Amino acid sequence: MPESLASFDQLKARLDDVQNITSAVALLGWDQQTYMPEHGAATRGDQMATLERIAHEMFTTPAMGQLFEQSAVELASADDASDDASLVRVAKRDYDLKTRVPASLIAELAHTTSLAHTDWIKARAENNYALFAPWLEKIIALKRQEADHIGYAENRYDALLNQYEYGTSTAEVTAIFDALKKDVVPLVTRIVEQKERANDSVLRRFYDVKKQNDFSARVAHDFGYDFQRGRQDVAVHPFCEGMSRDDVRITTRFDPRFLQVALFGVLHETGHALYEQGVGADLPHYLASGTSLGVHESQSRLWENVVGRSRGFWKHYFPQIQDVFPESLSDVDVETFYRAVNTSAPSFIRVEADEVTYSLHIMLRFEMEQELLSGTLGVADAPAAWNEKFKSYLGITPPTDTLGILQDVHWSIGLVGYFPTYALGSMLAAQLYEKAAHDVPSIPADIEHGQFASLLGWLRTNIHAHGRKFTPKELVQRALGEPLNARPYVQYLTSKYGDIYGF
Amino acid sequence: MPESLASFDQLKARLDDVQNITSAVALLGWDQQTYMPEHGAATRGDQMATLERIAHEMFTTPAMGQLFEQSAVELASADDASDDASLVRVAKRDYDLKTRVPASLIAELAHTTSLAHTDWIKARAENNYALFAPWLEKIIALKRQEADHIGYAENRYDALLNQYEYGTSTAEVTAIFDALKKDVVPLVTRIVEQKERANDSVLRRFYDVKKQNDFSARVAHDFGYDFQRGRQDVAVHPFCEGMSRDDVRITTRFDPRFLQVALFGVLHETGHALYEQGVGADLPHYLASGTSLGVHESQSRLWENVVGRSRGFWKHYFPQIQDVFPESLSDVDVETFYRAVNTSAPSFIRVEADEVTYSLHIMLRFEMEQELLSGTLGVADAPAAWNEKFKSYLGITPPTDTLGILQDVHWSIGLVGYFPTYALGSMLAAQLYEKAAHDVPSIPADIEHGQFASLLGWLRTNIHAHGRKFTPKELVQRALGEPLNARPYVQYLTSKYGDIYGF
Repeated sequence: MPESLASFDQLKARLDDVQNITSAVALLGWDQQTYMPEHGAATRGDQMATLERIAHEMFTTPAMGQLFEQSAVELASADDASDDASLVRVAKRDYDLKTRVPASLIAELAHTTSLAHTDWIKARAENNYALFAPWLEKIIALKRQEADHIGYAENRYDALLNQYEYGTSTAEVTAIFDALKKDVVPLVTRIVEQKERANDSVLRRFYDVKKQNDFSARVAHDFGYDFQRGRQDVAVHPFCEGMSRDDVRITTRFDPRFLQVALFGVLHETGHALYEQGVGADLPHYLASGTSLGVHESQSRLWENVVGRSRGFWKHYFPQIQDVFPESLSDVDVETFYRAVNTSAPSFIRVEADEVTYSLHIMLRFEMEQELLSGTLGVADAPAAWNEKFKSYLGITPPTDTLGILQDVHWSIGLVGYFPTYALGSMLAAQLYEKAAHDVPSIPADIEHGQFASLLGWLRTNIHAHGRKFTPKELVQRALGEPLNARPYVQYLTSKYGDIYGF
Repeated sequence: MPESLASFDQLKARLDDVQNITSAVALLGWDQQTYMPEHGAATRGDQMATLERIAHEMFTTPAMGQLFEQSAVELASADDASDDASLVRVAKRDYDLKTRVPASLIAELAHTTSLAHTDWIKARAENNYALFAPWLEKIIALKRQEADHIGYAENRYDALLNQYEYGTSTAEVTAIFDALKKDVVPLVTRIVEQKERANDSVLRRFYDVKKQNDFSARVAHDFGYDFQRGRQDVAVHPFCEGMSRDDVRITTRFDPRFLQVALFGVLHETGHALYEQGVGADLPHYLASGTSLGVHESQSRLWENVVGRSRGFWKHYFPQIQDVFPESLSDVDVETFYRAVNTSAPSFIRVEADEVTYSLHIMLRFEMEQELLSGTLGVADAPAAWNEKFKSYLGITPPTDTLGILQDVHWSIGLVGYFPTYALGSMLAAQLYEKAAHDVPSIPADIEHGQFASLLGWLRTNIHAHGRKFTPKELVQRALGEPLNARPYVQYLTSKYGDIYGF
């Protein structure tokens, strides 16, 4: 390594600046959804837009390109897995992604999606696909241009997918999803045949909101969420937002007539938060967050579903939750409750889907996005295609577009290639848990005793600590010794739901 | 006016950017004191420092100097009082103040005060002036340099005072303070002679915190504070923070054993907030806040003291507060309560002083700051000088430096020339109220009926709407037709406290 790291030191300082602005934007966003007074929205939008623009300009200025080049020379002999080399590699990748798309196209996308989003809200409320269709047409056209600027080896969709899941190809996702679909579609059919074996009616009694809040916070604390480096608030759309590893906040919404919403919402967001709180304390700020949406979702799904909806978990917590809500749960046994929180049934809305059917909602979108992007499916024909695919995967047909193609915000705000990360996360959750329980055999018993340090410790070491240093594929390979594949998830679903639904 | 305003348009866009960053810093600061998790402090400090540095760099870049020059040409024929001309004039003044002080001195001040502040906390806790003295020596020396860079006509202290109260000279403040002192010192003596006529013991009963919160919020609302453009939270040190006129937040602290703290704290912060919420909706963002610390304090003191501690106010609200706290107030009559909230007595701590003695605390600091700056008083001799002056103004001698010269944070963080603005605000409050009641004779009766629109309307028109367009002196002259003077405040204090204390 040369003695002088002048360029690299400059690069680090600039990346720190960019990261500090990004963190400020994160806080402004958090506040917008929690405490901002109603009329503060317009000026808040201006503040966020200004900071985002400044961060973008600072990051994409040609001087940064030179600093990347010179830093690479200065660090030529550094280990690829070192913090320094990783910082240059990851930031350079972001720089390439951001500088390849011309500012005029970014501006056109921002302008278009801003208008499209407003019409999408109206279209969804009024079940009026025709209102949204021209916008979807335009957004797809712009995303094609964006993909062409970013570049790709095989498939134009790769370029979009790589914005969220760097280094993962459409072909790889297709192979994994096909393997999953082959087993999950018949699984859904068998569950439907036995649907009387479980229902969530006991969750639909009265549950005091304050008590829901306290109980869910207690579990989050038990999982290992550090409230000295985080907090829990109420928001209409729950989310996790990290300003730094030392300030990672979750939000929740409460329904006094449906326990499922807040309880599993908190466990889900806690999973995201544990990842952000667990990144290495010494990592450069720029690398100190989750490496991809898919890996992030693996953490939220692991804690929400693999742990939080397991029989072992409720063995420990059911007596506690019964104590908190005696008026609603004293006549319920743990098995009924366990089946209630694992009730599976085909339904129309993705965000309300259970863990068996969820991935089918995603595959449908993944396939349709590719067809729309390639042009093999026209925008006008998309609702019919949606409904047909829905019927073939889930056995039911959406009665309206509001319950079908119009349900998600994503396309209206220009997010194409984003959906697959949700299902990749669910699959990775099962695969990570299997490996963790193999490496640390006490984990299942620990969970039965409300002890999560063994599981969290494994995730800290193998996933969290690395932050953004590695691509999702690299990280998975290092943690598991094999790539992501469908087998553990299929096995997890088949075994768990076969037990519940008796086949 | 020339047809092209190219430079001015550019200038406006840059000032908007600077203002948006400043607003983001304001939110980060608000969050730091309200909801930030304990361990988020270090990274929050980094985020704020980065944004402040970027805003400073954007504002003080030489390109801005050119834009100011060219904009002045483009706007040569614009009315001085127009928004456009005011924007250029006010921003140029800020630019001059900020560019005159070299970056090296700013950095040295920041570094010095950061260390000094830490030692000041220790010195105050341990009553150890010797620990703080070397820092005070250094800070005074640096402030001399700063003043010399800023420049001044007569008095070096003018340069520092102008950072907070632009266009007001040391000589003017001295004249006003001397006039005030002449009457207030004997007033304090007469109050002390009659001290048995009022005491605050009824305020030191038990007052439920939630009920205090609701009652004070009700009064804030009645004053005209718009909760759709603001909110009230808890903080250790109460403050008002504005992100824009549409998002102005106040904070409060509660003491269940002393009603005074939260109730008048809220009325005080509401006064600040009404000013920020009342700036003209069409003003450029850069001008959309209070014009000076003194004028700001006039608003908080007016609503807290002139209105909130008046007999007319309690005629309306005493039955209401009695209803809220029957267990503590059912045996109290309105006159006892009115005297309790207006109890006056010399005390050592400025922030706990009543409205009669408060200005004497300020004059002492104003005089000492000048002597320290000129060198006629040495840092080693300052505690004795403090105590001597205190005895001569307030009749009592601080038993420790913790209760004397070490009590305030200001000098430790480099604020010299700041103190006088507090007393100027108190004086201006009385003068503004006198003029408002003269222009709108119904105001006193309106207050007795809990109606504040007439008073707020006058303040909106004459003070709030103008934002930063005019200097404090210009604004006062426009609103009052005369400059700030001691007569109305002396008259207000003499009449009110003569009545309470019977002379």
